[in-house]
Amino acid sequence: MTAPDLAALETPLLLLDEARMQRNIARMQQRMDALGVRFRPHAKTSKCAEVVRRQLAAGARGITVSTLKEAEQFFAAGVDDILYAVAIVPSKFDHALRLVRAGCRLTLLVESVAAAEQLAAHGRANGHSHRVLIEVDTDGHRSGIPPEDARLLAVAAALVDDGAELAGVLTHAGSSYGLNTPAALEAMAEQERAGCVRAAERLRAAGHACPVVSVGSTPTALHARRLDGVTEVRAGVYVFFDLVMAGVGVCGVDEIALSVLATVIGHRPEAGWIITDAGWMAMSRDRGTSKQAQDHGYGLVADIQGQPIAELGFGEANQEHGVLQWKGTPGADLERLFPLGSQLRIHPNHACATGAQHGAYQVLPADGGALQTWPRFSGW
Amino acid sequence: MTAPDLAALETPLLLLDEARMQRNIARMQQRMDALGVRFRPHAKTSKCAEVVRRQLAAGARGITVSTLKEAEQFFAAGVDDILYAVAIVPSKFDHALRLVRAGCRLTLLVESVAAAEQLAAHGRANGHSHRVLIEVDTDGHRSGIPPEDARLLAVAAALVDDGAELAGVLTHAGSSYGLNTPAALEAMAEQERAGCVRAAERLRAAGHACPVVSVGSTPTALHARRLDGVTEVRAGVYVFFDLVMAGVGVCGVDEIALSVLATVIGHRPEAGWIITDAGWMAMSRDRGTSKQAQDHGYGLVADIQGQPIAELGFGEANQEHGVLQWKGTPGADLERLFPLGSQLRIHPNHACATGAQHGAYQVLPADGGALQTWPRFSGW
Repeated sequence: MTAPDLAALETPLLLLDEARMQRNIARMQQRMDALGVRFRPHAKTSKCAEVVRRQLAAGARGITVSTLKEAEQFFAAGVDDILYAVAIVPSKFDHALRLVRAGCRLTLLVESVAAAEQLAAHGRANGHSHRVLIEVDTDGHRSGIPPEDARLLAVAAALVDDGAELAGVLTHAGSSYGLNTPAALEAMAEQERAGCVRAAERLRAAGHACPVVSVGSTPTALHARRLDGVTEVRAGVYVFFDLVMAGVGVCGVDEIALSVLATVIGHRPEAGWIITDAGWMAMSRDRGTSKQAQDHGYGLVADIQGQPIAELGFGEANQEHGVLQWKGTPGADLERLFPLGSQLRIHPNHACATGAQHGAYQVLPADGGALQTWPRFSGW
Repeated sequence: MTAPDLAALETPLLLLDEARMQRNIARMQQRMDALGVRFRPHAKTSKCAEVVRRQLAAGARGITVSTLKEAEQFFAAGVDDILYAVAIVPSKFDHALRLVRAGCRLTLLVESVAAAEQLAAHGRANGHSHRVLIEVDTDGHRSGIPPEDARLLAVAAALVDDGAELAGVLTHAGSSYGLNTPAALEAMAEQERAGCVRAAERLRAAGHACPVVSVGSTPTALHARRLDGVTEVRAGVYVFFDLVMAGVGVCGVDEIALSVLATVIGHRPEAGWIITDAGWMAMSRDRGTSKQAQDHGYGLVADIQGQPIAELGFGEANQEHGVLQWKGTPGADLERLFPLGSQLRIHPNHACATGAQHGAYQVLPADGGALQTWPRFSGW
């Protein structure tokens, strides 16, 4: 894709470099195949059937979602093995059941006796046995039951009922996002694996089959040395990567498949500023690199070919204005270097957040052909 | 609206308290009427025809937008006097012209000689005279030309052409968002007024009619003591208000019309955490109160009636998980106080950002009737 193909486009818009995405998909799938586990990508990152189709074609089996809207949309697109990896509450039971009745193999998640009992009662009342995982907490960062906690067996007991079937355990070591050395990531991957396997062993010792042991996050999936006892791995953001993942150390900036195409709409030469039409509405307000060694502001500015421009920081954003700060030679003629109407590409801090601001990907195809539009959905 | 009406709803969703919104609309319109200026609300906050209809019914004349998509959507909804208040670039000229050809009285914005010349050439080539304001910078926070700058007259000269018509000047004192005392806000309102009027006077002295003098931001609009020389005021977020505006001091928390309805999906009693299904996807990543005296995290947690719960902080958010921290009595039984499946309402830091995460408002009608759905749009 060369600059002239993009020059006529109204901006901001979300660009997806298909070749980079395909390399990211292949890299993760090869790792999972080598480790001998099933891979179930998290579709919350892309919310796009075209992307998920490519993940499945590469060898993924089933997907993970974060909302029932995602489950609905991907089921409608032909994916029939879906794990809803957020603890379910009673107001969503009927929605889940509708998907099951329509033919979706939907797996649900609980982390409390209250949820387990109510879900089992709902299944029983509706003549269905809900397929359920128990959420295990292996790093204290969010939700789930610690592997050694007594509640683990209590939740499992509540699922032994006609209305629910205990399929296994699930954990997500989200605190891996805060690490940045291979050794720390490897240790976290082992902590995630060992904790989840331990929970499964306790359940088995209490008489539960517990066939599924599901773990994962992009950083731990890419650093696990062994996955003994694990049956499936989940990861989402690897498909596009982003600046946060580059800061964690699991990708290079040149592996980031997403960028926002922006147009220069003004200059403040006296301040050394360039104003673009990609503000926080186009980038999201995600400042995920703010706590990392390299803070990229609202994104990493690159030229139209995707080559980073080190001299341009992206420090401020209003709704539809991006304020880029020139850090190069003082007195440089910014109006000549970056004329009104010229285009820039801005790599995002967080692919999931930036993607969510857009209704579609404009895809730079791997075969070098014309730009394609892949819709993405949003909402609940 | 009582709790039982909401209890069956799947969450997260965006609630709009219509009675509060109507009071906010009336308050601003009455001020503008008293100050003797035309009011042109910024529709980027709501992106909703139902909301804009009520602003116009209250006395607003025309609207302001931040994207041509907004112009298109509101024109389709019957609004025919629209100011696109972001500096336009050549790749958007044809889009703007299509709206004009369809019958929209569209006013555009430029801040450079390059943009003015190219826009005039475009108008001339298409047999149309674009209606244009010049952006004036009165507070150094973003874009525009300072009132005393020589470029002001150069831009105006470039607009004296068959293809463009200089309609006036526009400024936005966005730095008012960083203030928090009535005296400072009053001073900023006067600085905004005086700078924009001064730019108009310079243009008039050079022979330009400059009929429009357009100023505004919610904080300055609510603190201006006089608006001599100003013909119209713009403001956006006042329609809903939010925690940032409460921190600036222009509204009370009980005037905020938006909240996100969330459901408790889990507990970590040992950490004092409650987990809800309103993460950053529902709230946005906007942390606008982080630099204010009172930092509200990802939002102010309230009960189902909208009464703030001071003991619950909202410090962490993942994509579909909100992590609320209990700051009340240690050892309180959180599972009893906030049971699985119970609902909370969370007021946003920034109404424009949180609104943008949702496809519709669920409206609690002023007349106490049943919940209504008002769609909102997104994208460019």
